[in-house]
Amino acid sequence: MSSILAEQCAENLRQIRENKPLIHNITNYVVMNYTANVLLAMGASPVMAHAANEVEEMVSFAGSLVLNIGTLSDSWIDSMVLAGRKAAAQNTPIVVDPVGSGATALRTATTKKILKECGASILRGNSSEILSLGTENSTTKGVDAVHSVDETVNTAALLSRILGTTIAITGPVDMITDGSRVVRVENGHPMMPYVTGTGCSATAVIGAFAAVERDMVAAAAGGLAFLGLVGERAGNVSDGPGSFMIALLDALYAITPEDLQKGSKIMEE
Amino acid sequence: MSSILAEQCAENLRQIRENKPLIHNITNYVVMNYTANVLLAMGASPVMAHAANEVEEMVSFAGSLVLNIGTLSDSWIDSMVLAGRKAAAQNTPIVVDPVGSGATALRTATTKKILKECGASILRGNSSEILSLGTENSTTKGVDAVHSVDETVNTAALLSRILGTTIAITGPVDMITDGSRVVRVENGHPMMPYVTGTGCSATAVIGAFAAVERDMVAAAAGGLAFLGLVGERAGNVSDGPGSFMIALLDALYAITPEDLQKGSKIMEE
Amino acid sequence: MSSILAEQCAENLRQIRENKPLIHNITNYVVMNYTANVLLAMGASPVMAHAANEVEEMVSFAGSLVLNIGTLSDSWIDSMVLAGRKAAAQNTPIVVDPVGSGATALRTATTKKILKECGASILRGNSSEILSLGTENSTTKGVDAVHSVDETVNTAALLSRILGTTIAITGPVDMITDGSRVVRVENGHPMMPYVTGTGCSATAVIGAFAAVERDMVAAAAGGLAFLGLVGERAGNVSDGPGSFMIALLDALYAITPEDLQKGSKIMEE
Repeated sequence: MSSILAEQCAENLRQIRENKPLIHNITNYVVMNYTANVLLAMGASPVMAHAANEVEEMVSFAGSLVLNIGTLSDSWIDSMVLAGRKAAAQNTPIVVDPVGSGATALRTATTKKILKECGASILRGNSSEILSLGTENSTTKGVDAVHSVDETVNTAALLSRILGTTIAITGPVDMITDGSRVVRVENGHPMMPYVTGTGCSATAVIGAFAAVERDMVAAAAGGLAFLGLVGERAGNVSDGPGSFMIALLDALYAITPEDLQKGSKIMEE
Repeated sequence: MSSILAEQCAENLRQIRENKPLIHNITNYVVMNYTANVLLAMGASPVMAHAANEVEEMVSFAGSLVLNIGTLSDSWIDSMVLAGRKAAAQNTPIVVDPVGSGATALRTATTKKILKECGASILRGNSSEILSLGTENSTTKGVDAVHSVDETVNTAALLSRILGTTIAITGPVDMITDGSRVVRVENGHPMMPYVTGTGCSATAVIGAFAAVERDMVAAAAGGLAFLGLVGERAGNVSDGPGSFMIALLDALYAITPEDLQKGSKIMEE
Repeated sequence: MSSILAEQCAENLRQIRENKPLIHNITNYVVMNYTANVLLAMGASPVMAHAANEVEEMVSFAGSLVLNIGTLSDSWIDSMVLAGRKAAAQNTPIVVDPVGSGATALRTATTKKILKECGASILRGNSSEILSLGTENSTTKGVDAVHSVDETVNTAALLSRILGTTIAITGPVDMITDGSRVVRVENGHPMMPYVTGTGCSATAVIGAFAAVERDMVAAAAGGLAFLGLVGERAGNVSDGPGSFMIALLDALYAITPEDLQKGSKIMEE
């Protein structure tokens, strides 16, 4: 247990609640509403804007930029790159969610394009999505993970060094690496995969932490510990995926920095 | 009561839970999130993808394709046709939801175009939407049904034979026909029309059943009996449309194949 | 307390429940689902349609048109203008929500374009959004309000006269003016800003009231009093933003015209 990282993520949550950082999301249609509610409930200030003729202006006053490729089309890709370049130029953290990378050529190519043209402060995906960026023979079934976390740790650390990005691989246990450090987060609940956009929510929550924290490994670990703890709390008071989803929003609002410091399960290796 | 169809739909639910078929949805913005949650909660694996440059690849590993015209625009129509042709070529079931067909010329024409260029394994709509495809003088008020189920049975059976598609007309009582067989499903709850996308959810659930069942009449009847029974369960534990919507997701997850076999009200005529 | 306006809004709710007016929404991706559920729960009949080749036909049988610029792109702006012109030509009320106007040049310009080319029966925004339309130096942080209601009353009254539109500014206290009358609505709950699309929902609810009421000040006040009262009821039975959001849908369905007449806090100055 890393008591330093636990303290850091509690402090970050405190700052999010106090400063309400604006999180600019260019994300997929499926999760837009839920992502916005997740960010509002935890105390951040979400904005969704995707038009090429406004994304650079919008991101200019954002605390972080979240790019999520869940429902792509060409004009959205262009806007993601425009916003990403602007964010990079002004040192605004960029958190990338490569939804379904590996499932189709378009998704893999788009993720690579974003990483190449904008860079990413943090790349968050399941093991299959991350593996798809590292090897040529990885395969993904739709947007669901078919690889274990363990077999991707080495690929992730290597990729992280090559791309200069912190990588967060989520699953039953989450793994975060910047190529040298490796941190594991064990918070979470088995009901989480039954709600659409749980992964996308994780990315957005990490975006909120990245807006108030310079250390991207700490931001990713903090966001994942927080959402995982929220999931644990929600799992205790719900009967199925519907009530879980709602209890999760309630818990995002209710959990205090002190709760987070006590309840986070962050291990630095 | 058809005990054979009841048994068949219970077995189909068992297979969905076991195999988690990938359901490729090209659907409307309004219901994307809810549809994805419905499919996840019942045990299927949803994916939403609409870009012309990935739909053929995505549908190539799907168990079924759901096309829903609720919020159209030209590029989406093109993608639906591309995905539909690919699905047809590889014998992947296509389930079509003609939302608001009859309300505007665009919607009626688009439904006819999809049916002509791709065919549909199952066409699911309310009575007005189905009638709009069969006669020139049918009218629809927005996306809501203004015709009774009974007056559309004959049109549906005729249309079904002409188009070679199974037709499911939903309402207080659901009617399924392939032109020769007629099956009625009496499960459901009066709160269902107060949640947006109940009809769209029915189409998606039918998509999941179609992914594991060769008999399209059985797939449509099974999907509708399941969602209707889920609605009955949700209606017993909720206070209004909000809590109903959430209880519905919980019940999609909780209802077992045995519950479904006992609770389904499927009548073959 | 205006007992006349309270009576009027109760009567309007009665008419909405009885006539189920069709509300045509061209709105943003984030709130489409929730907006549709809000309108359904309260008894109206929502439709979402944005294609240039169907919006004029769709709006031709709508009781009102709601234009919301929350997630813009060029083709959507064109459709909004097309639908708005058609609505204006047939005297269908138009309710405009300038989400984030002032935050980016695109949003401010689009709102001004819609107001100029179509006019608006009612313009509903927070104080920053409204101020952005009246002065050159107003600034907005993302889509959140940073001005008090009071400092915008004068600007709103002036703007209202110039544009010939009723303006509703929402916040802890809502203010409605048509340039001569000023009405305040004090219903509401502190949890409302923690749910995304609360403002957008207010606009849609006003759209439903405008479909059954000729006096636009009464329609705006009635819609805001109703949604505010619904929020109060939801706040009493919820634990956080998730359960609040769901309780709100239940209350939209449950609150009667009599409840509304008794509970509305509408003050005409």
